[in-house]
Amino acid sequence: MPAPKDVLVLSKEEIESVITIDDAIEAVEEGFKAYNSGKAVIPFPVALQVPDHSGDVHIKPGYIKGYDTYTVKIASGFYDNPKVGLPASHGMLLLFDARTGYPLCIEVDRCYLTDLRTAAAGAVAARALAKKDISRVAVIGTGTQARMQITALSRVRDFDELVVWGRNPERVKEYIAAMKDSIDARIVPASTAEEAVSGSDIVVTATMATSPVVKASWLSEGVHITAMGSDSPEKQELESAVLGIADKIVVDSLKQCVNLGEVHHAIGDGTITEEDVHAELGEVLLGSKSGRESDREITVCDLTGIAVQDVVTSQIVYERALKKKIGSSIRV
Amino acid sequence: MPAPKDVLVLSKEEIESVITIDDAIEAVEEGFKAYNSGKAVIPFPVALQVPDHSGDVHIKPGYIKGYDTYTVKIASGFYDNPKVGLPASHGMLLLFDARTGYPLCIEVDRCYLTDLRTAAAGAVAARALAKKDISRVAVIGTGTQARMQITALSRVRDFDELVVWGRNPERVKEYIAAMKDSIDARIVPASTAEEAVSGSDIVVTATMATSPVVKASWLSEGVHITAMGSDSPEKQELESAVLGIADKIVVDSLKQCVNLGEVHHAIGDGTITEEDVHAELGEVLLGSKSGRESDREITVCDLTGIAVQDVVTSQIVYERALKKKIGSSIRV
Repeated sequence: MPAPKDVLVLSKEEIESVITIDDAIEAVEEGFKAYNSGKAVIPFPVALQVPDHSGDVHIKPGYIKGYDTYTVKIASGFYDNPKVGLPASHGMLLLFDARTGYPLCIEVDRCYLTDLRTAAAGAVAARALAKKDISRVAVIGTGTQARMQITALSRVRDFDELVVWGRNPERVKEYIAAMKDSIDARIVPASTAEEAVSGSDIVVTATMATSPVVKASWLSEGVHITAMGSDSPEKQELESAVLGIADKIVVDSLKQCVNLGEVHHAIGDGTITEEDVHAELGEVLLGSKSGRESDREITVCDLTGIAVQDVVTSQIVYERALKKKIGSSIRV
Repeated sequence: MPAPKDVLVLSKEEIESVITIDDAIEAVEEGFKAYNSGKAVIPFPVALQVPDHSGDVHIKPGYIKGYDTYTVKIASGFYDNPKVGLPASHGMLLLFDARTGYPLCIEVDRCYLTDLRTAAAGAVAARALAKKDISRVAVIGTGTQARMQITALSRVRDFDELVVWGRNPERVKEYIAAMKDSIDARIVPASTAEEAVSGSDIVVTATMATSPVVKASWLSEGVHITAMGSDSPEKQELESAVLGIADKIVVDSLKQCVNLGEVHHAIGDGTITEEDVHAELGEVLLGSKSGRESDREITVCDLTGIAVQDVVTSQIVYERALKKKIGSSIRV
């Protein structure tokens, strides 16, 4: 019988205090590289339905060979929560010692790290695939992720103007007010999605849309599109023709993108085949597949979220918290 | 943003102090009934390999409709741990509010509840399938589970004699010493497995065997066999002919038993087909399928372990701990 061991517990606020978006961008880039280097062990996640309370729970374990820890993420969405004044989402990450399986840390991030690593993936994709010199960015969507995506993007590309479109003009106003001090660019509302997309060098979609909001005919030469709202089979942000005219389609995980996300829809209606997907993002980052090859190419990156992103960000948080002596501990 | 919320944390010792084997037997019986009433939501579990440290991690979520909580069990086996003086196994169960998805309790049971619910399942099987009047029980195996199975069995059946067989005579001696005050029966060592099995009314196998240790020709009329050591495709405790001559084969989960366990091997070599499995244990408990119908029948129950057992035991522990104000709490 071993002695009881302390497990570090970190709250959302403590987690926020030890990891920046820049940290997350570098970590997620390493994570994608690990994913395409055969170092990542990422089993197919398990989902638990709680049908009598409109809840679903997603459990994603992951490990990168050579790391000190492995991670199990448990995240839930309970869609009646807002009726009682609670956020629908909750989540935590558990870290275990990769040598023994013993628990080390519980990061009760309430989905903050999921938001952060998702935004970081968008920035990693844009850094790898968008033109170097850009002036205008469009964001479709006004929620938390639409904010975090643009904040992350601003760390990897300078731009003069951000054009925002969302279905609800009130929320567009709120978005602009919330973002104006976060980025060094003029932020303007668009009255239609077309107005936002037309003439933009980068288009970021971060919506809950289940029917396409971005059309192929609106796209400018050389545009890069990051689609990250589509994390279930029903969701769709880009009309299939967008993938049809793209010069390069890049995905985080091909296995996942053929089952959900934009690629899934475009394959489903026959616009593209699986072979039309140019690369997984990690392959581009490792240099085993090409990225953008001219300023005229249209690139699309379809992000559905993979557990390796959770592994890298949760491990950084743990290391930093230990070093800064942050968090409380429980003896178990 | 909701107020921070306290999460109850229970250590193994605290867990042991609030749940008895009798509690576990009743709970697990209810769990099996729920499993066969369409009330249980039990997704296929996920396994994570940690190959560079000989580790594997099993994650089993489960929910019973109408319950206040759902449970995620994370249990690991790291087979190099004993080299550094640590048990190979570790585990915890996390309970979440079934209405909101918010975390309520972390039961760091170090696999105690898994051992307990596994033993309880054996007792539930014996209560449903073994003869009422018995005198002699054989146990094959001398480990923790071989002890707990017999302790649990003694709560549902009286018997005069327990005959123990294990490969290592030293461990048989230790077993007898450890058990002599736990049950009200004479405990005697057997020099062969055959000697233990022959003439016994109940045979419990709880070994790590990968080749059969119990043969059909040794069995007495009316015997009930509970096989619970076989929780992976490689493991096998009963020769296939045991299932071939059984009047009734009962399993915890047919879906699982066709992929691992004794039934899996007997189907694999053609001794039986899936149709020869009489029932799932929950069906017998609910009365929708018959149990034992005479004192002459040979019954076999193949137990591989299902998450519903974790759900019911972990919820009882949580309720009792709240009532008795046991455990520490963390604010997250």
